[in-house]
Amino acid sequence: MRTMDRAAGVGRSRTISDVLADLDRPALGRLLYDDVADLYPLCRSLTGAGLRETLRRLNRVLPLTLHEVPTGTEVFDWTIPREWNIRDAYVKNASGERVIDFHASNLHVVSYSTPVRRRMSLHELRPHLHTLPDRPDWVPYRASFFTETWGFCLSQRRLDELDEGEYEVCIDSTLEPGALTYGECVLPGASDDEVLISVHVCHPALANDNLSGVVVAAHLGRLLQPLVRRYTYRILFLPGSIGPITWLARNEAVVPRVRHGLVLVCLGDAGPLTYKKSRRGDATIDRAAAHVLRHAGAHEIQDFSPYGYGERQYCSPGFDLPVGRLSRTPHGRFPEYHTSADNLDFVQPRQLADSLAGCLEIFDVLERDRRYASQNPKGEPQLGKRGLYQEIGDDEMAMLWVLNLADERHSLLDVAERSGCAFGAIRRAAELLETHGLLKAVDGEAHG
Amino acid sequence: MRTMDRAAGVGRSRTISDVLADLDRPALGRLLYDDVADLYPLCRSLTGAGLRETLRRLNRVLPLTLHEVPTGTEVFDWTIPREWNIRDAYVKNASGERVIDFHASNLHVVSYSTPVRRRMSLHELRPHLHTLPDRPDWVPYRASFFTETWGFCLSQRRLDELDEGEYEVCIDSTLEPGALTYGECVLPGASDDEVLISVHVCHPALANDNLSGVVVAAHLGRLLQPLVRRYTYRILFLPGSIGPITWLARNEAVVPRVRHGLVLVCLGDAGPLTYKKSRRGDATIDRAAAHVLRHAGAHEIQDFSPYGYGERQYCSPGFDLPVGRLSRTPHGRFPEYHTSADNLDFVQPRQLADSLAGCLEIFDVLERDRRYASQNPKGEPQLGKRGLYQEIGDDEMAMLWVLNLADERHSLLDVAERSGCAFGAIRRAAELLETHGLLKAVDGEAHG
Amino acid sequence: MRTMDRAAGVGRSRTISDVLADLDRPALGRLLYDDVADLYPLCRSLTGAGLRETLRRLNRVLPLTLHEVPTGTEVFDWTIPREWNIRDAYVKNASGERVIDFHASNLHVVSYSTPVRRRMSLHELRPHLHTLPDRPDWVPYRASFFTETWGFCLSQRRLDELDEGEYEVCIDSTLEPGALTYGECVLPGASDDEVLISVHVCHPALANDNLSGVVVAAHLGRLLQPLVRRYTYRILFLPGSIGPITWLARNEAVVPRVRHGLVLVCLGDAGPLTYKKSRRGDATIDRAAAHVLRHAGAHEIQDFSPYGYGERQYCSPGFDLPVGRLSRTPHGRFPEYHTSADNLDFVQPRQLADSLAGCLEIFDVLERDRRYASQNPKGEPQLGKRGLYQEIGDDEMAMLWVLNLADERHSLLDVAERSGCAFGAIRRAAELLETHGLLKAVDGEAHG
Repeated sequence: MRTMDRAAGVGRSRTISDVLADLDRPALGRLLYDDVADLYPLCRSLTGAGLRETLRRLNRVLPLTLHEVPTGTEVFDWTIPREWNIRDAYVKNASGERVIDFHASNLHVVSYSTPVRRRMSLHELRPHLHTLPDRPDWVPYRASFFTETWGFCLSQRRLDELDEGEYEVCIDSTLEPGALTYGECVLPGASDDEVLISVHVCHPALANDNLSGVVVAAHLGRLLQPLVRRYTYRILFLPGSIGPITWLARNEAVVPRVRHGLVLVCLGDAGPLTYKKSRRGDATIDRAAAHVLRHAGAHEIQDFSPYGYGERQYCSPGFDLPVGRLSRTPHGRFPEYHTSADNLDFVQPRQLADSLAGCLEIFDVLERDRRYASQNPKGEPQLGKRGLYQEIGDDEMAMLWVLNLADERHSLLDVAERSGCAFGAIRRAAELLETHGLLKAVDGEAHG
Repeated sequence: MRTMDRAAGVGRSRTISDVLADLDRPALGRLLYDDVADLYPLCRSLTGAGLRETLRRLNRVLPLTLHEVPTGTEVFDWTIPREWNIRDAYVKNASGERVIDFHASNLHVVSYSTPVRRRMSLHELRPHLHTLPDRPDWVPYRASFFTETWGFCLSQRRLDELDEGEYEVCIDSTLEPGALTYGECVLPGASDDEVLISVHVCHPALANDNLSGVVVAAHLGRLLQPLVRRYTYRILFLPGSIGPITWLARNEAVVPRVRHGLVLVCLGDAGPLTYKKSRRGDATIDRAAAHVLRHAGAHEIQDFSPYGYGERQYCSPGFDLPVGRLSRTPHGRFPEYHTSADNLDFVQPRQLADSLAGCLEIFDVLERDRRYASQNPKGEPQLGKRGLYQEIGDDEMAMLWVLNLADERHSLLDVAERSGCAFGAIRRAAELLETHGLLKAVDGEAHG
Repeated sequence: MRTMDRAAGVGRSRTISDVLADLDRPALGRLLYDDVADLYPLCRSLTGAGLRETLRRLNRVLPLTLHEVPTGTEVFDWTIPREWNIRDAYVKNASGERVIDFHASNLHVVSYSTPVRRRMSLHELRPHLHTLPDRPDWVPYRASFFTETWGFCLSQRRLDELDEGEYEVCIDSTLEPGALTYGECVLPGASDDEVLISVHVCHPALANDNLSGVVVAAHLGRLLQPLVRRYTYRILFLPGSIGPITWLARNEAVVPRVRHGLVLVCLGDAGPLTYKKSRRGDATIDRAAAHVLRHAGAHEIQDFSPYGYGERQYCSPGFDLPVGRLSRTPHGRFPEYHTSADNLDFVQPRQLADSLAGCLEIFDVLERDRRYASQNPKGEPQLGKRGLYQEIGDDEMAMLWVLNLADERHSLLDVAERSGCAFGAIRRAAELLETHGLLKAVDGEAHG
């Protein structure tokens, strides 16, 4: 694979820690934001051309394999639906003006609307119109994937302006056999054990939910690609619910190799980072994410619940994978959620970059976590004669903690948690002690 | 057994849930209160006619087997004492007026007083008189079961009115070989495993302690009798301390079948429901009771301590049964405790009915707790195509939790605890999902 | 051993409980304080005559075995250093006056200073002078055990008085092959299992750090000596860091017998007793110390950290001994720490005596902790017929708790912790019940 060749060449020994040390957050933020802005106008849905075009454009950031799963394919309890495509949609008034226009915003059409071309009175049309009376300037986002219907979304203010009388209603859509498309990128690591990153990519012009997650995931892949990796990273760009179910159904052999995973969503708003634990609640990803967020300042840790995004499927009882979810403000807790106000003003470059950095810090823990055996376990080794007091200064406590817990049972994450020191300080102490022959890494899993 | 025939006939498929759904609490409260009032004047003690008459009257509510254990029988470390009976007792002044009169209140005589018929000065009498100086209008309750003595209880105000001079003192009691009596009702269930309900029935005219518990237990039996039951219910009406010891000594073969148990006491006062955990502290009864009380509003959960009522014996180290205690205000924490103020004003119909309903809700958890296996454990099943989103509305979360934890390991009580949903909502979700073939109950114990 | 003969003779049946009951704290405090004062002027260091003289004087309190470990001996990762001795040291001004004088306070010389005899300017001398600018009247304590250098410590005020000009600088010390000395006292008990008491004895004229610990340890030994003991007590007087390492290296066969241990330090100041847990965190010593301190009033419990005194070595991963640390204000948390202000005013007789009493109470728990089997485990035994209600009055709850948990699994410390009663009350209840044949002690370890 071309990607790996590049990694094997130039960047052989670079690690996530190095990337974090060098990270130019403002520049990264601009890159991420520009990609969100580029993808924003596309009309994504569960299936169809808008989803495909999104994945095609992400290919510029990260080489993706596109999978096409034909309509009618059974995936566990579900069936791949017909493919939905739309060219145009509008409501014209008696003067022929488009009072609702799909080309102004793809939110104006209920996703998966069946085709319509009729004249009708406002009275007849009204049951097909969706507004947010409490937010009169905002257009809601609506979809009806599994029940055949059609509809338009518009602001309450626009609806109030419409007079009774006849309208020309057109939804130039098709709902036909086709395929469900998803994108996948696998970055092989030293081990076949995998870190899964999963984002939903089925929402139309909504910036935070989830172009933020989509773009952060793609650039995570881009940054991980040239590095030396302990784990294999698998990044999935999928439509919601049926997407993860489809991937799971087609990859049951891969599932046992998933050792850690993150669902990424709503990563561009101004809220603090929020981690939702896996169903297990004490998986290494849960501990690593909680540790990183705790040392990063304001944050929130949530217990698992069986509602949300891909984690519903990855954490279903037949899989129970160690997959958590990282977001900023969780869905449903910001008023802009699923409305036209989740737009390019609502997400900010700095926030996107910080979210990505948070992911890298979590992965850095996963990559670097090890168990060690002290080579001088009886009493403390004499650090002074090795010049180790001066060498790390304030980090002496980190060094003493690592030595004290280097008993083959405690991993560096255990040491970080027990000591209250940041994982990075613990890791650096361990590396220094290893250099001096005072520690030896233990083979096998860091975490049981 | 006649009772079971009735159950087998009319109410074959009714369950505790149905009873709770239909419960007319005001009417039930009146029934309970009337029975408390009916039993109030009887002079109960550890043994004797008052106790027998109480059990005989309870027979109208619930068919009881009366056991008579002869004086002198050894029960573990204890010996059944002589039987105490009393016909009359008084102190007459020089004018022949009864200044203390057993017929006015049976509290006036120290329970188990030996017979007396003498004339004596107030000075001589005084050591045999018990009052509550801090509560000058109340008469204390006193007993001396295992030390031979006699005495009278009266209000401080009455004592202050007595002049020096001679009194005629009469206690027309007998303390003779006889029997200790207790009542028992067994309601067989689908399983031989038992739920034990135990109340002390040895106190004279005290309403809350424990006619409230006695009457709630009897009516629990009445309501359970016609139902389909998973468990066998055993309801015991016993004198305190030696009563449970006697039952345990005579039923060692039954003990291993006791899977859950509740001691009922002080259930008529205005305090919040209070549950005292079993010695084990994490028995299913402990978790079920805590769950029910938590969802019922104001309540208190207490850790086990080796003081109190029957739980002292059921939780002794040689048995260590999963038996907790349900009360409203615990004994000793209301000033009326063991005084004449624990009277028919102190207990109220509504409180009695709510206590009984609390018991039923706890038993409903025990009856309905199950472990399930999801029939679509890989990813979520598609609820929409089964119309399940509409059908339960707000209860969608309960449904998702049940599906997510339907892994044969989690019981519905586990699901209720983890989700924060009420057990009832979890149970209804499970039943609905089972109807649709999405769940299958797992054989065996709900709780390990 | 003479000590044991005495114990076997006069005090055969006295226990720690008896000592505690009789303890004359004011008298004990005076004894302890006088010994601190006696040892205060000696110039102790890691090795040398001052350390030996200190141990020789402690011999008056407790018979000690002195071990001499030759310079150059390898002890794990360390090597016994050369022995340091000093006769005199001063800085004389142009007038021949001693402006810094070792004989005024041994803190004035940096411990382990190499010999010097030169004239030099203040400018040249200055890099060798150490002060505390923020505490201008105090002299700091400094040592340089493993890096060859020399220096003087003085108050900032004295330094400010020195004029430029020439000074005569003399440190009449030797740094030559010799030995590291430590003292040890073993008091055999019924069992070979040991309680380890360890104090560092290498600091010069500092009263709290650690003459307080040294003197408390010696008098603990004195008081334990004549008693009947369950455990063997081993009391170690060692130089810091290399002392415990040396002992461990020479006693690997003893290590597995160490069942409990306490490092004693800073026990004379006015702060509350503070216990720092062992690395295990849940060792019996951790639970016993926490229990005793909790019932003693103001106190602090600290989690283990790999910094501090001997616990660093005893709790190194190759040993992981159940050794905690008892102090009053921990080192570094009082400003007098490692300065001339840690003097004979800073420690007080009462505080020394209370610290010693705290140790005895902890050892009393270790000595008396047992598991019991109730001889009447089914139901409660009838206490009344044995007169046990009257006999212990308010301690009835302690008795009920002991009986309830006398199931061979719970130790008395478990009972004390669960009941909230003080260990002493629980122990007395158990002894009373045992006397009445209601309990039988279980062989084997109290704690698993």
